[in-house]
Amino acid sequence: MADVTAQDSLGTPAATDLFQILRDGRPRTRSELSGITGLARSTVAARVDSLVRLGLVSPIGNAVSTGGRPSSQFAINTGSRVVLGVDIGASHARIAIADLSGTLLDQQAVEIEVSQGPEAVLGWVASAGRAMLESHGTADGLLAVGVGLPGPVEHATGRPIDPPIMPGWDRYDVPAHLASEFDVPVLVDNDVNIMALGERDMSWPGVDHFIFVKVATGIGSGVISGGYLQRGAQGIAGDLGHIYVPSGKDIVCRCGNAGCLEAIAAGPAIARGLRERGHHVESSRDVADLVRAGNTDAVQAVREAGRTIGEVLTACVSLINPAVIVLGGTLAHAGEHLLAGVREVVYRRSMPLATSDLQIVQARSGANAAIQGATMLAIHHALSPARVDAMLQAQS
Amino acid sequence: MADVTAQDSLGTPAATDLFQILRDGRPRTRSELSGITGLARSTVAARVDSLVRLGLVSPIGNAVSTGGRPSSQFAINTGSRVVLGVDIGASHARIAIADLSGTLLDQQAVEIEVSQGPEAVLGWVASAGRAMLESHGTADGLLAVGVGLPGPVEHATGRPIDPPIMPGWDRYDVPAHLASEFDVPVLVDNDVNIMALGERDMSWPGVDHFIFVKVATGIGSGVISGGYLQRGAQGIAGDLGHIYVPSGKDIVCRCGNAGCLEAIAAGPAIARGLRERGHHVESSRDVADLVRAGNTDAVQAVREAGRTIGEVLTACVSLINPAVIVLGGTLAHAGEHLLAGVREVVYRRSMPLATSDLQIVQARSGANAAIQGATMLAIHHALSPARVDAMLQAQS
Repeated sequence: MADVTAQDSLGTPAATDLFQILRDGRPRTRSELSGITGLARSTVAARVDSLVRLGLVSPIGNAVSTGGRPSSQFAINTGSRVVLGVDIGASHARIAIADLSGTLLDQQAVEIEVSQGPEAVLGWVASAGRAMLESHGTADGLLAVGVGLPGPVEHATGRPIDPPIMPGWDRYDVPAHLASEFDVPVLVDNDVNIMALGERDMSWPGVDHFIFVKVATGIGSGVISGGYLQRGAQGIAGDLGHIYVPSGKDIVCRCGNAGCLEAIAAGPAIARGLRERGHHVESSRDVADLVRAGNTDAVQAVREAGRTIGEVLTACVSLINPAVIVLGGTLAHAGEHLLAGVREVVYRRSMPLATSDLQIVQARSGANAAIQGATMLAIHHALSPARVDAMLQAQS
Repeated sequence: MADVTAQDSLGTPAATDLFQILRDGRPRTRSELSGITGLARSTVAARVDSLVRLGLVSPIGNAVSTGGRPSSQFAINTGSRVVLGVDIGASHARIAIADLSGTLLDQQAVEIEVSQGPEAVLGWVASAGRAMLESHGTADGLLAVGVGLPGPVEHATGRPIDPPIMPGWDRYDVPAHLASEFDVPVLVDNDVNIMALGERDMSWPGVDHFIFVKVATGIGSGVISGGYLQRGAQGIAGDLGHIYVPSGKDIVCRCGNAGCLEAIAAGPAIARGLRERGHHVESSRDVADLVRAGNTDAVQAVREAGRTIGEVLTACVSLINPAVIVLGGTLAHAGEHLLAGVREVVYRRSMPLATSDLQIVQARSGANAAIQGATMLAIHHALSPARVDAMLQAQS
């Protein structure tokens, strides 16, 4: 009888790469790695050999094999090399140095307006990064730099494209600027995508169908399907903020369209509604503070925003069939009210099978999600088969 | 200076597998294959060696290398082995034999009600399949069987789950039934997923972000993101038919919810509206016939259904950022009216960047999409790294 249950390998990639498995530091044999990844043993063996030659993975003792010769176990050398993760926000920049498991060894933050332009902001990143590498004695061990930006990024080039809150950054070559400082690959993505990556890798390892939604001044999401962050054809997958919501058809969005989700349910829209009721609120943060103070108007407004976001997420649930939806951003963390509104609508309107195992939860990584995601972006790239191959060629 | 433009390899899998590239029959060197897939040369070399040992790929002459020794080219042996593709519909079953390029060598169809149950339907599949293998003298060359069913299929087991139009099939072990006949892996998926796979592989090779929407008695879709068919956490990704549409909030769907897309815009809903205007129509096919006869009421109704489907697809465009949306099924092929309604809404409501290169088109494969998809499902599996590895182990 043939193997008839191997549906997993068809059409979908091995969702968890070799490195994702080794990242926990536990030693495993080639055969175990082959079993977990679904990759052919010859592929696993070649990949492990390459990683060993680069010093990124080491053989550990000998495991007793069921058959003939003893089979070695392999574990990642988490401390052998480092990456830098950079999180640039509207009014802050943060940089961290991490080992290959994603553990942050050190981090530093500064208040700086992104509107000061790329030279100023990336200048701080370069000097803070260099100082960090020197103080850790790892200047030669840097493998890659990952960067999150608060605006849309063209995936193929790593350049910001028409970013609304980043004057002077449009099409700026961020990778080239930082590569000239650090002489390693530089990976750039938008902040919501890297938060999705950070939150998934750190809090939901092994979850292959995952949506991270950020609700603050705007609304955006990062989508992981089949184990991989999906950017779509133009790199703008997950752009929930401008999905049309019929109940808001008379409200014009800053994008020029009417009825966009974020024109109805993001921080500024909630603040506007609360001002009409006499409250002194301007920003998402003010709204969150009012909610935390127990103000009923604010609590109701945030819960209603959650319901509206839930309407859009219901469509996402049918389309993507995620196992986990995580809500992050200022408004998600002001109590459970946003979450309650989202859950109310998604669980009522979705097909039972789609929600039977669906978890809708608050983000756990908090302020660290972006910096963690940026380091993971760098690590994923640095240990990808193509990159490992390039490093081997450079050595020989 | 480091390679700073290699954003493609991060977080996303090599979207096009080795086999997808060789499928066109053109010979290529290992180094070319490495360049196209982004896989490490050692990985490509190991994979090619395995395929050669199994006789699935052959070295062809010698290409002149830019450096030292001549490098062989490799091409797929399309005729070396075969697969069977099976398309089971509400009232038909179809089977085809195909070579490894997906070219159909022979096919056969029968009118049979799926409600006759799995024994009757799969009995016909088994005897027709055996006869087909014998008449082609390829009984020993069968690599795998791919099957499409007109209902939800649990991805991990290949069993239909609560299929509404398939009495007697609930949780039936379709893979085990056919594997006992053919002694090869049997892959089962729902018909819309395999139509998506067939349409993409045959008409849109290389398109990695792709949605196939079937509009007939129901509405469903198959979603390809990052090059791979996405099934989601429960295997029900792409289930567009039950997404809530506010304009239909008073219409109850057969699922028990109100306002589902398919309760408003699929064939039966359109037929009901036309009957209220005095037309004698029952099925999607009747509606399509009336449209083809140039009836204005029917043309208007189908266009309006297109607009409603467009509302839901606008959310899909923001979330997935596809390069191509293909419309198939009875109603999509009754002129361009459904397409026109969809385009009208999607292009008006989406963000400019998301639609700048978006194509929304009719399906090209027509009745063959499902059977082509079923053969591709079998071929993808048969030539997957894990399966090739299993075949090598069985040989040794």
